[in-house]
Amino acid sequence: MTDRLVIVGGDATGMSAAAQARRYRDADDLEIVVFERGHHTSYSACGIPYWVGGQVEHRDDLIARTPEEHRARGIDVRLRTEVVEFDIAGRRVRGHDLATGAETWTGYDALVVATGARPIRPELPGIDAPGVHGVQTLDDGEALIATLSATTGRRAVVVGAGYIGVEMAEALIRRGFEVTVVHRGAEPMSTLDPDMGSLVRGALRGLGVTVVGDSEVGEIRTGPDGRVRGVVAGGTVYPADVVVLGIGVVPETGLAAAAGLPLGGHGGLLTDSALRVRGHDDIWSGGDCVEVLDLVSGMRRHIPLGTHANKHGQIIGANIGGGYATFPGVVGTAVSKVCDLEVARTGLREKDARAAGLQYVTATIESTSRAGYYPEAAPMTVKMIAERGTGRLLGVQIVGREGAGKRVDIAAVALTARMTVTQMIALDLGYAPPFSPVWDPVLVAARKTVRAVEERG
Amino acid sequence: MTDRLVIVGGDATGMSAAAQARRYRDADDLEIVVFERGHHTSYSACGIPYWVGGQVEHRDDLIARTPEEHRARGIDVRLRTEVVEFDIAGRRVRGHDLATGAETWTGYDALVVATGARPIRPELPGIDAPGVHGVQTLDDGEALIATLSATTGRRAVVVGAGYIGVEMAEALIRRGFEVTVVHRGAEPMSTLDPDMGSLVRGALRGLGVTVVGDSEVGEIRTGPDGRVRGVVAGGTVYPADVVVLGIGVVPETGLAAAAGLPLGGHGGLLTDSALRVRGHDDIWSGGDCVEVLDLVSGMRRHIPLGTHANKHGQIIGANIGGGYATFPGVVGTAVSKVCDLEVARTGLREKDARAAGLQYVTATIESTSRAGYYPEAAPMTVKMIAERGTGRLLGVQIVGREGAGKRVDIAAVALTARMTVTQMIALDLGYAPPFSPVWDPVLVAARKTVRAVEERG
Repeated sequence: MTDRLVIVGGDATGMSAAAQARRYRDADDLEIVVFERGHHTSYSACGIPYWVGGQVEHRDDLIARTPEEHRARGIDVRLRTEVVEFDIAGRRVRGHDLATGAETWTGYDALVVATGARPIRPELPGIDAPGVHGVQTLDDGEALIATLSATTGRRAVVVGAGYIGVEMAEALIRRGFEVTVVHRGAEPMSTLDPDMGSLVRGALRGLGVTVVGDSEVGEIRTGPDGRVRGVVAGGTVYPADVVVLGIGVVPETGLAAAAGLPLGGHGGLLTDSALRVRGHDDIWSGGDCVEVLDLVSGMRRHIPLGTHANKHGQIIGANIGGGYATFPGVVGTAVSKVCDLEVARTGLREKDARAAGLQYVTATIESTSRAGYYPEAAPMTVKMIAERGTGRLLGVQIVGREGAGKRVDIAAVALTARMTVTQMIALDLGYAPPFSPVWDPVLVAARKTVRAVEERG
Repeated sequence: MTDRLVIVGGDATGMSAAAQARRYRDADDLEIVVFERGHHTSYSACGIPYWVGGQVEHRDDLIARTPEEHRARGIDVRLRTEVVEFDIAGRRVRGHDLATGAETWTGYDALVVATGARPIRPELPGIDAPGVHGVQTLDDGEALIATLSATTGRRAVVVGAGYIGVEMAEALIRRGFEVTVVHRGAEPMSTLDPDMGSLVRGALRGLGVTVVGDSEVGEIRTGPDGRVRGVVAGGTVYPADVVVLGIGVVPETGLAAAAGLPLGGHGGLLTDSALRVRGHDDIWSGGDCVEVLDLVSGMRRHIPLGTHANKHGQIIGANIGGGYATFPGVVGTAVSKVCDLEVARTGLREKDARAAGLQYVTATIESTSRAGYYPEAAPMTVKMIAERGTGRLLGVQIVGREGAGKRVDIAAVALTARMTVTQMIALDLGYAPPFSPVWDPVLVAARKTVRAVEERG
């Protein structure tokens, strides 16, 4: 008898799971049905800022695999169909056809919950006004680009200064807008410690972006036509012809919660190592709707990122297909670009270490991406955090120019291996003048951190 | 009473040891004498090809610290003084002043042997003719540049196609020479497996370099004026107005051998973890004249590379100073650039694995440096080698464009941590479209290698 796999959500996790399960089991053995409420499958949401900014020309460039391509592999993709209920006891889901309004129940032998995350939209006056945009899906990106093309005004306000906010600020500058970024913390990019975030503020200002920190948005002001006219924050009105929300996302787990599936403290689904939802042998979940283990702190986190979502999909697909794969957890690596500034982080910030009960020392160094005498050697700031006493690496943050960002991978692997900073000093990293000073900046930071560990005792 | 530290060799290891020992112990406590037979201290020999090629303008740009700067820190640097004998029993060295011919004995309480390596100069007819150059020291670089400026002919032959040979070929092209590279193996860059080396051959040819493989030089042909005229290899004469030898180096350990210090199979000094010469409490050695432990194969290797030499110097200086530091070994990471081609390797090649008695599988993949849709995404080839059965990572080789080379560091850390390729698949590496496809090329290679391990069993 043919089993039926039902997947809810047709982006990275859902479609990777489908494709991987299909590699293991053919259509006679496993029927695969995917419900996707949007118009697209398998696209790179992370690429939307570059599409808006014009570096990526066509929407379709962001689509790794179309519904037709998936269907050609025997995957039954049902677009514009929103699943509105999980019936766990009955092993079925209820789908709602967004075009016709028709509703149907579909039974499953295995269910994958890949509902992703939804952007935070604070309940503010005017938040739903035309001209206020999220950038979570391709459909969102399309709507934003339509607004940008139609509007005659050139003033844009970005709310939030995380990765998406900062990338969108640059994209809007590229499109010729005057851009103001309004954000809550003291410094942009709160995934960094403030001392490193201040370097990002400098870069944004260098681009011509007005950066307003320590500021909470209280209202979206609209005009007589109902369209957005401004953003009110901290008593000031920032005029706006378009507003982009980049405040962050939360796991899209409303249906899962309603069905009684277990959620963690961040609102994400809880799974085991094989990405099976805890307590449910026939339900799997991954991507932006789950919580993951932080290997450094030992705590659970919610990290919505395409790279994890793709891995999760592969793991789920392999396990459903009869293979075996697990997801051990994350160390919290992220990298981003603001114009020519590269920003990277992995592991714990100071406040994460404190929250995890870890005492630590820090060291910050300045170095260069190449040998100092080699052309285009660019400055780089590396901050390192290590556990007091043991010297175990806890985190690294890097801000610099070309060649800075991906150096964070050295620390990401070292964190995974639970290396101490003393062990890191001896790392045999690639050296040649076009690539690195004779002491790689990460090693220079490790040396200074070792001294800090020794001094602190 | 003041101790005396005598250091033989004033480049990376010697001067790093001197500077680090001085940080721990001041001049009243420790006298430091450095003998250097050349004219310079603390310079980047790795930078010489870029100085010859014109990317680095001045010789002095390659000098990290001059003799005067060292002297200002209370380090007694004696240039143009060659040490010609170690008297181990008498705890003294004999110095020969190259200018005056005067010889003097200098006693020591601690001795650092930092004599480096010397270029291999095969005993061929004509090898000492004017116009035949090595590129090991700044003095060598100066002599080569003088020849290049003086010669009217434009034909250059580079003997050897390792890092230095390949970098020198590019430098000579930049100076407007017609360049032929003659080398022994089937493919250039024998630190790579031949399948990856062939990609380097393609890049050299793209630069306009004539590459002659499988060819052993038998003679350097000279003209009536005694200057070089050509290189004879495999029965063919390659006309040459200048010849650059890049055949490799061997440890400069003649004096150490004469004094009865222990040498390994590659002719390098044998040390303990603290870089003390085995069996000698008061003698230390590091850099290009020692053998190091290969952490992947468990065997000893000779790896002349500035980055190790600098580390060794720091470790020796700390230990002599009363601190504590060790050098655990290497994994064999190296990175190089040929025009815009980046070439990197770490760990074992196939033949190294065989020599170490390790059975292995390999996988090679093509990917890109950035998300495929992002501007300037450049192709990259990654080859991975893992142990049969266990799946332990054994080696990685990468050839690609911008963003390819330093990715080898991911593998270098993974090798140090003795990770399996299955563990590597889950690595939390930095992802954003300007930096990487959603699956980093190293992860794509790891996935394919896992399948190869599973299939081989």
